[in-house]
Amino acid sequence: MSFAATRRPLSAMGGGGALALTAAVGARNHHLHPTSGAHHHKLQHLNHQRRHRSTTTTGAMGLTVDAINANVRRAEYAVRGELAVKAEEFRARLAKGDSTLPFDHVISANIGNPQQLDQKPITFFRQVSSLLENPQLLENEHVLVNSLGYKADVVERARWLLKQVGSVGAYSPSNGVPAIKESVAAFLQRRDGFPADPAHIYLSAGASSGVNTLLNVICADKTTGIMIPIPQYPLYTATLCLLNATAVPYNLDESRAWGTDIDTINKAYEQAKAAGTDVRCIVIINPGNPTGASLSEKDIRAVIDFASRENLILMADEVYQTNVFVGKFHSFKGVLRQMQKETPGKYDAVELASLHSISKGMVGECGHRGGYFELVGFDSEVEANIYKFVSIMLCAPVLGQCLVELMVNPPKPGDPSYDLYNKEYSGIHEGLRERATALRNAFSQMEGVECAEPQGAMYLFPSIHLSQKAVDAAAGEGRSPDDFYCMRMLEATGICVIPGSGFGQAEGTLHFRTTFLAPGTEWVGSIVKFHKEFMDKYR
Amino acid sequence: MSFAATRRPLSAMGGGGALALTAAVGARNHHLHPTSGAHHHKLQHLNHQRRHRSTTTTGAMGLTVDAINANVRRAEYAVRGELAVKAEEFRARLAKGDSTLPFDHVISANIGNPQQLDQKPITFFRQVSSLLENPQLLENEHVLVNSLGYKADVVERARWLLKQVGSVGAYSPSNGVPAIKESVAAFLQRRDGFPADPAHIYLSAGASSGVNTLLNVICADKTTGIMIPIPQYPLYTATLCLLNATAVPYNLDESRAWGTDIDTINKAYEQAKAAGTDVRCIVIINPGNPTGASLSEKDIRAVIDFASRENLILMADEVYQTNVFVGKFHSFKGVLRQMQKETPGKYDAVELASLHSISKGMVGECGHRGGYFELVGFDSEVEANIYKFVSIMLCAPVLGQCLVELMVNPPKPGDPSYDLYNKEYSGIHEGLRERATALRNAFSQMEGVECAEPQGAMYLFPSIHLSQKAVDAAAGEGRSPDDFYCMRMLEATGICVIPGSGFGQAEGTLHFRTTFLAPGTEWVGSIVKFHKEFMDKYR
Repeated sequence: MSFAATRRPLSAMGGGGALALTAAVGARNHHLHPTSGAHHHKLQHLNHQRRHRSTTTTGAMGLTVDAINANVRRAEYAVRGELAVKAEEFRARLAKGDSTLPFDHVISANIGNPQQLDQKPITFFRQVSSLLENPQLLENEHVLVNSLGYKADVVERARWLLKQVGSVGAYSPSNGVPAIKESVAAFLQRRDGFPADPAHIYLSAGASSGVNTLLNVICADKTTGIMIPIPQYPLYTATLCLLNATAVPYNLDESRAWGTDIDTINKAYEQAKAAGTDVRCIVIINPGNPTGASLSEKDIRAVIDFASRENLILMADEVYQTNVFVGKFHSFKGVLRQMQKETPGKYDAVELASLHSISKGMVGECGHRGGYFELVGFDSEVEANIYKFVSIMLCAPVLGQCLVELMVNPPKPGDPSYDLYNKEYSGIHEGLRERATALRNAFSQMEGVECAEPQGAMYLFPSIHLSQKAVDAAAGEGRSPDDFYCMRMLEATGICVIPGSGFGQAEGTLHFRTTFLAPGTEWVGSIVKFHKEFMDKYR
Repeated sequence: MSFAATRRPLSAMGGGGALALTAAVGARNHHLHPTSGAHHHKLQHLNHQRRHRSTTTTGAMGLTVDAINANVRRAEYAVRGELAVKAEEFRARLAKGDSTLPFDHVISANIGNPQQLDQKPITFFRQVSSLLENPQLLENEHVLVNSLGYKADVVERARWLLKQVGSVGAYSPSNGVPAIKESVAAFLQRRDGFPADPAHIYLSAGASSGVNTLLNVICADKTTGIMIPIPQYPLYTATLCLLNATAVPYNLDESRAWGTDIDTINKAYEQAKAAGTDVRCIVIINPGNPTGASLSEKDIRAVIDFASRENLILMADEVYQTNVFVGKFHSFKGVLRQMQKETPGKYDAVELASLHSISKGMVGECGHRGGYFELVGFDSEVEANIYKFVSIMLCAPVLGQCLVELMVNPPKPGDPSYDLYNKEYSGIHEGLRERATALRNAFSQMEGVECAEPQGAMYLFPSIHLSQKAVDAAAGEGRSPDDFYCMRMLEATGICVIPGSGFGQAEGTLHFRTTFLAPGTEWVGSIVKFHKEFMDKYR
């Protein structure tokens, strides 16, 4: 297994990332190999300990990269790494009229950014937020209603939210606007059929900020182990690297559409424990990023049972909970409460943090940075420290908090805005399903490519089998084969995807992640064409 | 000097904060004394090293506060600490009709939250943002203009911003929307008379997020020293505590309206250096928080010269740059460029990070979490790591970024929206000046209270002289005297201010910080009345 085999976009980033993350893992079947780009930087690593200031013949030097926080230097974040930077360069060149590129636009399939591509914001949400931004509009309600098509429930919701928040320009309490936390609790109760307590709900600046908060509190030092799925969303490895804590990877089962395999999890846990790692938490991303999997209730039950038995915190990243195309979404909270009901006493001590976001789903409002997490079973003094941590950053964006409220409490059947809301919501969902299917069909026709059925999230994560000649060519550039493949794809087509090594992948396998957000089929055709040419070239 | 003598709101927070921050300071004239509440927690500190899970007679335990990240446990953040929590409790009781309290509303003078109190958002900003939120409104431009009073420049700006950002619901590049960074650069050039480069401007989620980014990169470990003013905004001590780096405090000169004193700074620096601290950076907050000072150009020149000589990064927190009531604001960037011009070569290596925000000033949009920082003279590989760090949190809220653009590029004379903008802007500025003056006049009549002339920011930081009887009563509650005083004030008046110990204050002095944002004079009268009764009671 290898993390982060993408080449560093900038020589500044050092070469220790993979080691830092896996050195203490104790999973002996995982090979530790520094990334291919690391040899560029050997010399500077020898100098890590020197003072940040040194006097040279040309005078004093300021802070150098050798002297900065080594955790930052080691951290990697492939989603916005070299490929993304290069894609932006291409975009800028095209915008300036450069006609030397073999494509006429760049498609950012590297990041789940729905509204950058084709997804339109939901009208109800944005009508309400326009009133929150300019409450003076409410003084002309007749104009809103008669001339601008705002329905009565839009106006009513905006008035209610303004009453709760005062002004969206004011700080809210650090853990969020109380009334919005109550709305989230009511949503969770409707979703799961079990009560939720607003006192344990924390509004956050997207789920990323929630993950950051939780890991900052949970991780004491480098002996702290956090189990993460492989492949994973690199926020987890990057944050653990920043905290100098230990990632304890467990492989997802590609042969079962990237489901969780409890034997694999158990083995990874036991190995880490045997190596002295204080494993405290298991992260599950469901639906999966980058895998696109949607976990079965059976898988979830097994994970909860494992966490309960080993006394681990469950961190359920459920930001794609509405992006489900096969079967239905099962929340960890709902399944946990069900298990607690079925077997009284047995699961009472389970600690669960589950996260959600306005960034994904049919909402797609990632630019607004809104989300929440709910805590179940946490010690009250630990929660007090979580509160203190979030208070240092003051509060999540208040408009993002209001969008959380709209997401969890959308128009209901019979409400004036319901028909349009429902039409837009269903249209987006259906469009995503169609695009996912079309893309998967294309992949399944490509030589040496295999791709699981798209079940959820916004991604496909096909495996690719490359020739030795291609592998050698990649090595010649100091790149991993998947990174090499993705770079050539970007250069040939303008389509930016991310190599599997940015997420972690089982030893000896190669993948890439692409969103299926981009409209049309032309870009899919470009990938097919590129792939054929690539395979032919390196045959 | 003592940090953090406020009593912990929750026993969870441990007692090591002051020690952690000052232990490595090496400033031998600063007494290290654990906070008064610390003795409550001695026992649990002895247990810090035990495993987070233990089996008791009642079964397994989950994560306990003893096992969490010790840096989080030690961190303190008085601005939203016990007093703020208690104020919210009072507010909730009043909202539920509780009539047993001796006041009928709570005034949150603990936090610079303009729009929570009386400050109205600026119409131009919010008209534009309403269009950014709902671009469909632009399809009815005639309704906007003819029926809703939107001027042509509002519509034009919204169209331009939408063209730049695509959708405010989409992620932007990690360091911000390119065109907005260009607007910021143009503003800096107008402000300072020297060019600014958008490539070195980073849009952030308020200045707090910028400070967090910079300190995360600069601080390598606990030997890293960051010079901070005393008193300081507790974001700095809290963030340094989270990073387990060393705060190197330097006292501001209360006798010179809280100006910087270069001898004091030099002495603090030399002492820290002698103690083995690798001092890398000096933080200046100008205009001052909590002091309300506005630094003279002479003070700024001396600090730049010192930083240049000792090769320290300058971190200029300039979020109150428009809240200036005496003299004018001098930016570190402008003064630095001037010095570079005057003495070619001498100051070329100076590294400066200067921060600004939409949260303060006449904008007051703190709920939108927008800001930026500009880097001057930083090593390019260090900057690459700063970029990587911000990319892990994806991007600052895009609407907040747009408000940054509006702040730095407001309507100009002759623009359709200028007259109203100018009237609102000047009205807020004048109102703040009047409130500050009225409050200072009231303080100057209070027994044992001294208060510098309000020069800038949103705060007054009067010193208070309390009797030994009051000091003893405070000790009896395990509180510092200033904390005791502020708690009594809150209970008697519903006014929440923060004790000076939350910001740090010179040994043997006591202060509190209050904003002067609240409207009217009645609350000022309440403070005067409370103070007299307090002084009489403990005479």
